Formats: sequence, C-alpha cells, structure tokens
Amino acid sequence: MGLKGAKVGIIGGSGRMGSWLGGLLEAQGAEVLRSGRSSGLSAREMVRQCRIVVVSVPIAATIPVIQDIGPLVPQDGLLMDLTSIKKPALDAMLRYSHSQVVGLHPLFGPAPESKGLSIVVCPGRGQEGLDWITGIFQKSGIRLVFLEPETHDRMMGIIQGVNHFATLALALCVKDSGFNMRELLDCSTPTFRQILDRIRAMLEQPSSLFGSLLMDNPFAEGSLQTYQQSCESLERIIRGGDRKAFQGLFESLDGFFNKEGETS
Amino acid sequence: MGLKGAKVGIIGGSGRMGSWLGGLLEAQGAEVLRSGRSSGLSAREMVRQCRIVVVSVPIAATIPVIQDIGPLVPQDGLLMDLTSIKKPALDAMLRYSHSQVVGLHPLFGPAPESKGLSIVVCPGRGQEGLDWITGIFQKSGIRLVFLEPETHDRMMGIIQGVNHFATLALALCVKDSGFNMRELLDCSTPTFRQILDRIRAMLEQPSSLFGSLLMDNPFAEGSLQTYQQSCESLERIIRGGDRKAFQGLFESLDGFFNKEGETS
Repeated sequence: MGLKGAKVGIIGGSGRMGSWLGGLLEAQGAEVLRSGRSSGLSAREMVRQCRIVVVSVPIAATIPVIQDIGPLVPQDGLLMDLTSIKKPALDAMLRYSHSQVVGLHPLFGPAPESKGLSIVVCPGRGQEGLDWITGIFQKSGIRLVFLEPETHDRMMGIIQGVNHFATLALALCVKDSGFNMRELLDCSTPTFRQILDRIRAMLEQPSSLFGSLLMDNPFAEGSLQTYQQSCESLERIIRGGDRKAFQGLFESLDGFFNKEGETS
Repeated sequence: MGLKGAKVGIIGGSGRMGSWLGGLLEAQGAEVLRSGRSSGLSAREMVRQCRIVVVSVPIAATIPVIQDIGPLVPQDGLLMDLTSIKKPALDAMLRYSHSQVVGLHPLFGPAPESKGLSIVVCPGRGQEGLDWITGIFQKSGIRLVFLEPETHDRMMGIIQGVNHFATLALALCVKDSGFNMRELLDCSTPTFRQILDRIRAMLEQPSSLFGSLLMDNPFAEGSLQTYQQSCESLERIIRGGDRKAFQGLFESLDGFFNKEGETS
C-alpha cells in the first residue's frame, strides 16, 4: 500500500508552519487532518487514523510529542517534523517509531512569500516516504536542500543562533544606552532603522522560539563562542587603533563575502 | 554683507556627500565651487574666493583640513562640516576659525532617497549662518534634528558604532564558521540573507569610514563596552538555560521597542 492517497495528520496543524504545510498538501490533493489547541481532535486519536504524520509543535515540545505518538505510526507509514533543529528530532523519530522518517526545516518565516522558497530535507529512514514528500515540494516549486541533521544544526547555530543573538544583544545595548525611543528614532540612519525593524519583528514572535534556537541547538553554544572570539578580535583592533589591521580584516571579509561568491 | 549670494566652496566637493550638498545648494540658487582630487583647485585657493566653506572629507582628514583652512574663512563667513562625529569637528572649527560655525551630519547614506531625509544640525557660532543653512534645508524638505555635539556623538556611538561593530563581528564569525558562501546561501533564512546583504553593502564602502566611526568617535568605546555587557548578560542566560529570564528579557525589550513608541 503506497503513501499516495494516505491520510495526513498534522500535530500542531493550526499553528503557522503546520497551516502552511497542510494547505500545500491539500492543494496537491492530500486529505489532511489537524490536531492542535483549536481542534477537538487529540494527537493520539488523529495519528491512529493517519499513515502520514507531521509534528509541527514548538521545538521544546517536539521530542515529548514524538515519544508519545511515534510508536503509533505504522511501519509503512511516514513520520516527519518541521522544527529548526534537526539532530534531536531525527534521533527521536528513529528511536520511537518504526515508520519511515524524514526531517524537514522550511527556510522561511511564518508568512512565506510565494517565490523562491527553500526547505531543508534530512532523510531518516525509507525511500518511499522521502520520494513522496520531496515530489510534493518539487511540484510546488520549492527548492530542496539535502543535509545531514548534524551539518544542518551546525549551520543553524550561525544562521539562526548567532544572528539572533547579535540582534538581541544589540537590542539590549540600545535599551541600556540611556536614550529613549523617540530620540533614537529621530537620529536613526537607514541601517539602524533596519535593525529597529528587525528587533520589532523578533519581539512579535514568541520568546520561546528564540530561546529554543539558542538553548536547544547542541551546536549553538560553539557558534556563540566563535562570535565572542570575533567580538574580541575586533575590539582588540579598535582599542589598539590599528587601522592597518582593520583594513586587512575588511579585505579578508570582502574575499569571503564578495569574491568567493563570484568564483563559485 | 549677508550670506545670501555668497560663493560656497566645498572641500571634497566631488565626494559623495559633498556632491550631494553641492547639488542641493545649486538647486537653491547658490554659486558652488569644488576642490578635491578631481578638481584643479586647491582647498586654500578655493577658500580664499568663498565666504561659505564646507569641509566634506573623510573623518580622519577633517581636523587637519579645518586647521589648515579655518583661519582663511572671513569672520562674517560660515564654516561647516559634514562628518559623522561632531564634537571634535565643532571644537576644531571654533578653535581654528573666527567665522560663524555650524556642524552638520546628514542621517543618510551616499545614495540618499529623495523622501524623508533628516540632518543633524549642531549650532557652533553665529545666528545668520545657522539661519541661512537651515533655511535651505527646510526649503528642500529636509527634517532638522538639533543636537549638542556631545549628545550626537554619544548617540552615534550606538547607532553607528555598535551597529557596525555587531555586523562586522557577525561577518567575522560567519567567515570563521567553516562553511563556504555557497553552503551558507543555500541554507539562508530571510533574516540571514538580510544580514548578508548588509555585510556586502558595508564591504563596498571604504574600510576607513567604519574604522573612523569606531576609533575616532570618543564615545564609541563606551558604547562597545555596553554591547559587551549585553552579550555577557545574554550569554549567561543562555548558558544557564534560564528560559524564564530569557522571557523576562524579551518582555523588557518589548516594553522599550514597542510599548514606549506607542505612548510617546
């Protein structure tokens, strides 16, 4: 019995990413059930009716949910998750289920633009499930990025962890600067205004999301150490007034961010 | 003899901000001379022909240029500068000239959009010169932000100094992450892509500009200390896995960046 035509159950199907995936699957002809806060259906009840199950809950809840429903997914079924940290989720899905397993991480925010979407795919177990879900994404024009879970998490330690950390630290520094918002807005440069917009966008999302990206990703701590070292190198150059070293740093960054992109 | 109709000389008039101001003054009917690398006119020769003089050279060159040409500006003339650090420039203009003095800092980049431009005005000496230049800006639809030079520099220690510092430190950390640009681009989230764009935009400008903003602003060092403390507080919370403290931090930031803006 193939997965084509199998019912899909999304745990957290009324959340933002769960809704997005549910809509996409329905548009490709799948029958989708949703459990979640606003539905009357419990996750366990729903999973018993489905051969394909997607876990789309906050990062911190992902492992307990997998532990709970993983054993209920049939061996020829498919278990997937949508969280931003892949190694712990894959490990848990492989451990607590006998089904096929695929880990997914959509590389876009809660309000995806329709063009140029990418999704990270971490194959876990089974070929049919992998072919089914990647086929659906490809039909929807979504670009696939295949990665090992550990490589993914290492990258996200930088792309999400350090990036969010630097923005939050700057936000804290601005708050502690002694100036109020009115004064700061009056004197904003275009790049600072961009930072203020970015800070506001972060603060509109649940703090637990960023807390998880920084605390639950096993590679975030190492990335934060690299960031700390970068801050220290840069500070040393600035404190020493070493303009030649500062210029050298700029040139090496240019080599990485501009030149490397050109040749590859 | 009023300033209206007086010749304006811009030192560094072929540079980006000098060109912008020259064009704006000409559009308002002023006669503008320019000295600079590509003009045959030396700064001293030009200043001798002008009653209004604008210094628009890199920050590190500003004080020496003011020292050189300040004494040549007539007492009823007007000396101005366009640099991003105001206290040292104002101090030098007041010290080396007997003319009227106004410090200016356009709060926009080298390619100003036509709408919503703001400029910081630091009055130095004389009312007529101040009225003349602010009148021209107002006629051009530019919003004026009056500030003490020291207050301006303190704010720019954050708005430019820490902001650029955090971006450069992140750039350095990304470069040292062990991933290449191709891999990073493949896995970029929208906010990370924004950061990459910002880094590339910085690297297109001369490193000396950012070096000066971080090394020549007397208040940048204090701001960098505040940033370091912010990084340390945040790291402590993350290392300790203190999700309650993390949430509290988020809420206090929300109070500052969102709530305060609403009530003012």
